[in-house]
Amino acid sequence: MEKDLLGNLSVPDDAYWGVHTARAVANFPITGRPVGTYPTLVRALGAIKYAAAKTNCVLGLLDEKRASAIAGASEELMQGRWREQFVVDVIQGGAGTSTNMNANEVVANRALELLGAGRGSYSVVHPIDHVNLGQSTNDVYPSALKLGLREAATGMLRPALEGLIQSFALKAERFDDVLKVGRTQLQDAVPMTLGQEFRVFADTLRAEVNRLDVALQDLTVVNLGGTAIGTGINCDARYGMIACTYLSTIYGTEIRLAPNLIEATQDTSDFVTLSSALKRIAVKLSKISNDLRLLSSGPVAGLREINLPERAAGSSIMPGKVNPVIPEVVSQVCFQVIGNDVAISLAAEAGQLQLNAFEPLMAHLLFDGIQVLSAACGTLADNCVDGITANAEHMAAQLQRSASLATALNPHIGYEKASLVAKEVVRSGATVVQVVNAMALMEEDELAALLRPELLTRPGRMA
Amino acid sequence: MEKDLLGNLSVPDDAYWGVHTARAVANFPITGRPVGTYPTLVRALGAIKYAAAKTNCVLGLLDEKRASAIAGASEELMQGRWREQFVVDVIQGGAGTSTNMNANEVVANRALELLGAGRGSYSVVHPIDHVNLGQSTNDVYPSALKLGLREAATGMLRPALEGLIQSFALKAERFDDVLKVGRTQLQDAVPMTLGQEFRVFADTLRAEVNRLDVALQDLTVVNLGGTAIGTGINCDARYGMIACTYLSTIYGTEIRLAPNLIEATQDTSDFVTLSSALKRIAVKLSKISNDLRLLSSGPVAGLREINLPERAAGSSIMPGKVNPVIPEVVSQVCFQVIGNDVAISLAAEAGQLQLNAFEPLMAHLLFDGIQVLSAACGTLADNCVDGITANAEHMAAQLQRSASLATALNPHIGYEKASLVAKEVVRSGATVVQVVNAMALMEEDELAALLRPELLTRPGRMA
Amino acid sequence: MEKDLLGNLSVPDDAYWGVHTARAVANFPITGRPVGTYPTLVRALGAIKYAAAKTNCVLGLLDEKRASAIAGASEELMQGRWREQFVVDVIQGGAGTSTNMNANEVVANRALELLGAGRGSYSVVHPIDHVNLGQSTNDVYPSALKLGLREAATGMLRPALEGLIQSFALKAERFDDVLKVGRTQLQDAVPMTLGQEFRVFADTLRAEVNRLDVALQDLTVVNLGGTAIGTGINCDARYGMIACTYLSTIYGTEIRLAPNLIEATQDTSDFVTLSSALKRIAVKLSKISNDLRLLSSGPVAGLREINLPERAAGSSIMPGKVNPVIPEVVSQVCFQVIGNDVAISLAAEAGQLQLNAFEPLMAHLLFDGIQVLSAACGTLADNCVDGITANAEHMAAQLQRSASLATALNPHIGYEKASLVAKEVVRSGATVVQVVNAMALMEEDELAALLRPELLTRPGRMA
Amino acid sequence: MEKDLLGNLSVPDDAYWGVHTARAVANFPITGRPVGTYPTLVRALGAIKYAAAKTNCVLGLLDEKRASAIAGASEELMQGRWREQFVVDVIQGGAGTSTNMNANEVVANRALELLGAGRGSYSVVHPIDHVNLGQSTNDVYPSALKLGLREAATGMLRPALEGLIQSFALKAERFDDVLKVGRTQLQDAVPMTLGQEFRVFADTLRAEVNRLDVALQDLTVVNLGGTAIGTGINCDARYGMIACTYLSTIYGTEIRLAPNLIEATQDTSDFVTLSSALKRIAVKLSKISNDLRLLSSGPVAGLREINLPERAAGSSIMPGKVNPVIPEVVSQVCFQVIGNDVAISLAAEAGQLQLNAFEPLMAHLLFDGIQVLSAACGTLADNCVDGITANAEHMAAQLQRSASLATALNPHIGYEKASLVAKEVVRSGATVVQVVNAMALMEEDELAALLRPELLTRPGRMA
Repeated sequence: MEKDLLGNLSVPDDAYWGVHTARAVANFPITGRPVGTYPTLVRALGAIKYAAAKTNCVLGLLDEKRASAIAGASEELMQGRWREQFVVDVIQGGAGTSTNMNANEVVANRALELLGAGRGSYSVVHPIDHVNLGQSTNDVYPSALKLGLREAATGMLRPALEGLIQSFALKAERFDDVLKVGRTQLQDAVPMTLGQEFRVFADTLRAEVNRLDVALQDLTVVNLGGTAIGTGINCDARYGMIACTYLSTIYGTEIRLAPNLIEATQDTSDFVTLSSALKRIAVKLSKISNDLRLLSSGPVAGLREINLPERAAGSSIMPGKVNPVIPEVVSQVCFQVIGNDVAISLAAEAGQLQLNAFEPLMAHLLFDGIQVLSAACGTLADNCVDGITANAEHMAAQLQRSASLATALNPHIGYEKASLVAKEVVRSGATVVQVVNAMALMEEDELAALLRPELLTRPGRMA
Repeated sequence: MEKDLLGNLSVPDDAYWGVHTARAVANFPITGRPVGTYPTLVRALGAIKYAAAKTNCVLGLLDEKRASAIAGASEELMQGRWREQFVVDVIQGGAGTSTNMNANEVVANRALELLGAGRGSYSVVHPIDHVNLGQSTNDVYPSALKLGLREAATGMLRPALEGLIQSFALKAERFDDVLKVGRTQLQDAVPMTLGQEFRVFADTLRAEVNRLDVALQDLTVVNLGGTAIGTGINCDARYGMIACTYLSTIYGTEIRLAPNLIEATQDTSDFVTLSSALKRIAVKLSKISNDLRLLSSGPVAGLREINLPERAAGSSIMPGKVNPVIPEVVSQVCFQVIGNDVAISLAAEAGQLQLNAFEPLMAHLLFDGIQVLSAACGTLADNCVDGITANAEHMAAQLQRSASLATALNPHIGYEKASLVAKEVVRSGATVVQVVNAMALMEEDELAALLRPELLTRPGRMA
Repeated sequence: MEKDLLGNLSVPDDAYWGVHTARAVANFPITGRPVGTYPTLVRALGAIKYAAAKTNCVLGLLDEKRASAIAGASEELMQGRWREQFVVDVIQGGAGTSTNMNANEVVANRALELLGAGRGSYSVVHPIDHVNLGQSTNDVYPSALKLGLREAATGMLRPALEGLIQSFALKAERFDDVLKVGRTQLQDAVPMTLGQEFRVFADTLRAEVNRLDVALQDLTVVNLGGTAIGTGINCDARYGMIACTYLSTIYGTEIRLAPNLIEATQDTSDFVTLSSALKRIAVKLSKISNDLRLLSSGPVAGLREINLPERAAGSSIMPGKVNPVIPEVVSQVCFQVIGNDVAISLAAEAGQLQLNAFEPLMAHLLFDGIQVLSAACGTLADNCVDGITANAEHMAAQLQRSASLATALNPHIGYEKASLVAKEVVRSGATVVQVVNAMALMEEDELAALLRPELLTRPGRMA
Repeated sequence: MEKDLLGNLSVPDDAYWGVHTARAVANFPITGRPVGTYPTLVRALGAIKYAAAKTNCVLGLLDEKRASAIAGASEELMQGRWREQFVVDVIQGGAGTSTNMNANEVVANRALELLGAGRGSYSVVHPIDHVNLGQSTNDVYPSALKLGLREAATGMLRPALEGLIQSFALKAERFDDVLKVGRTQLQDAVPMTLGQEFRVFADTLRAEVNRLDVALQDLTVVNLGGTAIGTGINCDARYGMIACTYLSTIYGTEIRLAPNLIEATQDTSDFVTLSSALKRIAVKLSKISNDLRLLSSGPVAGLREINLPERAAGSSIMPGKVNPVIPEVVSQVCFQVIGNDVAISLAAEAGQLQLNAFEPLMAHLLFDGIQVLSAACGTLADNCVDGITANAEHMAAQLQRSASLATALNPHIGYEKASLVAKEVVRSGATVVQVVNAMALMEEDELAALLRPELLTRPGRMA
């Protein structure tokens, strides 16, 4: 039986959480997914409660015994324990207050245990007066989100991206001598190699790793010490800086204070920016997935340039059909991430005055987005890209018959005559060489020199 | 150990699913949420497999023994059993093939048990040749989604909306005599009653119930019998119609065949429309939630017209603070539903030629959206609206001092003179009555007659 | 020189608009596009001012002379005159007040001219006291938007859609005997005809015409008589109904009053629904455009099933290249309409209490969306679909070599054996007939019977 | 009369554009807004054609006479001439080919004039063989978009943002001593100054200027020399680098080549990033606009902390009403920009293989977005923020009566006792001082010291 402003409420005997958490569970029966779903968020809450206890002790605001018990309990959170005690729904009202209260209660009760006192003896260690000392949800919660999201992105998405880049880069090397028709607007364009095509996939994603790092840099700036609205009421002026040094040690990177804590408390654009970064990745990944589906279309009536590895019987009615199921699942993940970006924009826009009450949704969608994007990269690399093979002969044959080779004639016979050649190639089905010869436009050896693959697929000297 | 086109694979001994499901589980480790999360989807798969077995038996394509075992197993799905056997991730490639295969395998193995045969004895009951007879994922899966979504919306969202409407309607009645200042563009406007304000909430949501019913009507049209691409290959021409009669009986409503099965197989706009319907509800619910937050702002420095029931201590630092946590969680759910609508639009737009491979994402987001919107309506009614109280005196006092009462003078002294009155009211802080008297613009009793509340809050005779 | 609450302001000598319009022009220099850009909106404003004058006269609130001058001026707006006098930017603050004021001023000044009085002699005909009598922006503006949008959609988008449907339907008939490989997930699937493929385009768009009609039905319900917030202050109780009868005559369809005028004044979901309808069309049109690009990809290294008419030299470097420029412009229009839908959702969600101040944006995006979608349908029909030709021989040849023909063997040899056939077809490049013969699975004539096109492309008797 | 691949076509006598442009005008009658609408785009096309001519001359590929005529004509474009000759619709198919062709034709014809030859004498200066030498639309068009967008953002949006920041900063200084109740979740929170509140607006927008600069940095990387698909076919290997040095001089900033030209040719994520930057600004601006509306709500029944300058009579029915019309128009612009971001994401995702054909839409929405956001910042600064005044007395009075002052008691009497104080303040309407005294919880002078404003609005020493 615990008590708050609203009265008494009974709490399960084995719970480490208390009355505030219990009310939140009753208020928000929304998704059925508890905050504990996100391990790096729980870790970040632990890190902040740890830093707070240490800082308050240094400042003489909390005695050593309490501080050390709170720090000990918080360390356990950082080690991954007690996640099952974070039972509040990930989507919640109250701007994260329930998540912070859940953390305060779990830490207080575990600290009490560590001190040999009974759970609920809040006069010894109080969830608010001691665990939350010098803090407000409005500085703890966004700071924990930032640290938790950063760790999730660094630990999960970054390596998943790098694995996928590696897979594409290996294929690029493998396919470097495979000549093919490039395409613009789905129409035959000038020649390239399949290696060049796959290298683009690697290079374009490599840029995203750097972008992600930049976006994650924003997440190292926190608003601790700002308390309720950023003015720092009830908080020692030195608190934020000292807490940041503890966090810097824990996370192995510099965690800094925002220059204007009032601004930092109400602004959520770091989350908007992270979402934009995820969306950018999603836009590229979906485009790549679509390209893989195009290139592997067939096996007869398609482009059939590459073969994706067979991952499943593709159809419950068409025997032997094998579908590009992995790129398909990737695109769906990307569509969701793009949709989430809209939801996050709405949530950010809806902030009012000194706070944005809709951070829990942003957190949910960002943690989720990082997770599904990482999973998508992983399955794409392992279950698709690594097993791709090329139909080099088919591609070579099509290149021979392609009218777009006429492009190479422009500098020699002009665009208009080259157009006539191209038109005749399409009309007759003959090759460019045959048509040029028939029209007696160039010497044969001059033409052969022009059409050497190494000239066609990279820039040379024109003069 | 089971076998398919790609080779052998071992399957857990106690599983009712088989090799196709096992491959899917390995291919799609995306969200961690299995298809069995959505009970009405599993029910719908059962219903369709039941209808198929019965129809094939009637058409003489399946012997009675097999048909009755398959129908029996399917009925168990309809009763809610075996949900835990639907283990494929909700987001999957393959246009739902894995979900259909999962269903085929579970039904086959359970049918085998019912026949006293061992699981995996597919020569007796084969997942594809018998359970999936006359079917393709491309007709089974979208049909199951439609039936499942319709049941979820009917059974969960509709009553949740009606409960919320009822809550608002009761408050409207309660507040019918409470006079207040109406507001346009957040500026004081002409008078109204708080009952009128709350009746709008009820009425505007009531319209959504009707809209939802219309959108759900689309979900009664299925493409069974179309098989792979809607041409009906491998399916008896009579199959679709007969299967629909079985489904009509099961669902207690007429289930019809689409007029052009090829179109119906590739088109996903029924899902787009359902998403639009959910979004429309979300847009309204979020606006209402925002209104409740505005009206209850305070307790001192806000509009403070109404009081929301206290649901939790609002702050870990500001004692006694009580926040509008329930409307806040509702808005967040709405933002997510609005974002989902974008993801669904992308998925629908990305369909190619005879199929849209991205239906699994649409399904996931729609089932999820129905669930969270229903939960949001429920908590809003129970934990917020039902406990709202009004600060009638405060509202009456503000109305007395409001310049917008000058509107009622227009027909008598003209817009321009009335503007001068209003301006003086704002400048001086005096009431409209005092200013009109001071400016000697009308007789006192004439003015008093004009300002009777019943005249101000509803249309009368002007001549 | 005119005057309002804020002071004096000079107005150009030849302008029919006045001080309120002048202030708006100065306040909103946003897009450079004036309200007069949308002819049906100006017409609708005229119709409402006409109906108001007539109604007020009938009710004895306005003398016949003034009423008839106002009605006369308003009729000129309905005839398309004075559009250049609607100079306020389409995106404006004030919930449309500036548009309504612009209309009031133009009508008043033109009415004055018709009476032989000088423009600006507002004591004779006053923009607010007479032209706006019994009205508020908050009932005039949304009503005008509804009537104007409905006319634009009916007069422009509906016929454009019907023209496009007709173009697709004609091609469907033309292509009814052209056999081809259907595709699911871009992989070869079972046979169909090109006629069936094009008939889907026609049928799926035909459904949109009906949908649009339903959405437009919502736009016949107006909130006239509600005045400022829907309570009807300063308006005769009979006004709304009578005005609707005038509007019904003008528009030739029943225009009705909303049942709850307070709800109707603040709710914007009719615009959300219209936007959803436009988005649904956009999703389909973009998918169709993408299909046309896929089917016409080539001329060598693509699917090359159809040829789009050549509309332009496709490249400034690749001679002879012809690109699918028309489907490309259509998709872009569709992307914009899908994005607009998000903006409209945000605007609708942002409504507060008794009004939504963001209707001008919704209006702008909807009028614009109708216009560009209509243009897109027009150019797609005229400059693309009408000139499409088919490469029937190529398609027939590919169908012969397609493994998916093995689907037709399922009912006879079972899914697993049929899978072996399909696999061998893909491996060897032989045809299904050759493989079946080589594996001696069926009699030749039995097989030939199974593979008759008319059986493959439509459902038959299976027993 | 001009001629291309498709035949002859007549061109107006006074036009500088030719057959390719004429075809585009006929193909794309979409928005009615020509490419010439965007002056910095036309300038960028001129700059690129200039750099190309100079580079080709240096490389010995173009004779000096032609090069100098082409450069001369291009310089005129850079000076702002001939914009009216860019007549192709901004939304166009063909991936920008029509825009590039329009530029080639205008430059060729103007160069011919400069040479004293007749327009259309393409054997002297040919639009493609000479003006477009070493180029493809696929490198010219995206490069021109980048340079043009960068100049528009730098020249228009950046100063508009800075002006608005300056306006907010001045008000912040002015309001630094005005005490008020801060608000979280629209509920009264701890004290702050109005200066702090306005300084947040300035600071949060200042961050956007820096963000914008970073996003614009991406736009200095171009893909010139890549030609059709980035492989550089028909282009001298030295071309790109040399052209960049000319562009660097023209734009006064380093313009660099992308490291992988094939990737750069097909990737559009620089546009996605610019759109994200615009969206981030929009999200903040709309939130700020909403805050201004909240703070100025009233004049009686609102928060009435600040007064926006009166910009227009607010209502056609409510005399004297003044509405927040400027913040309203700003929010609408922001909603549009947020919606545009979705359209741009769709367009980017839809790229296929070696090109994205949907860049024209991205260009249109980005140029437009920059323009309307700039206009919104301008009108917000000039017509709203600069004229804001504060109701200091009203705010002070409310702060006195606020229960949230009890927060300052936490460190002294604990959160639970402070909660009782707060509750009693709300219940009784007494002040915190009165309640603390009545409950005899602290000495009067101790309490007075705690509640000094300078302590309440910034962090101090706690020990």
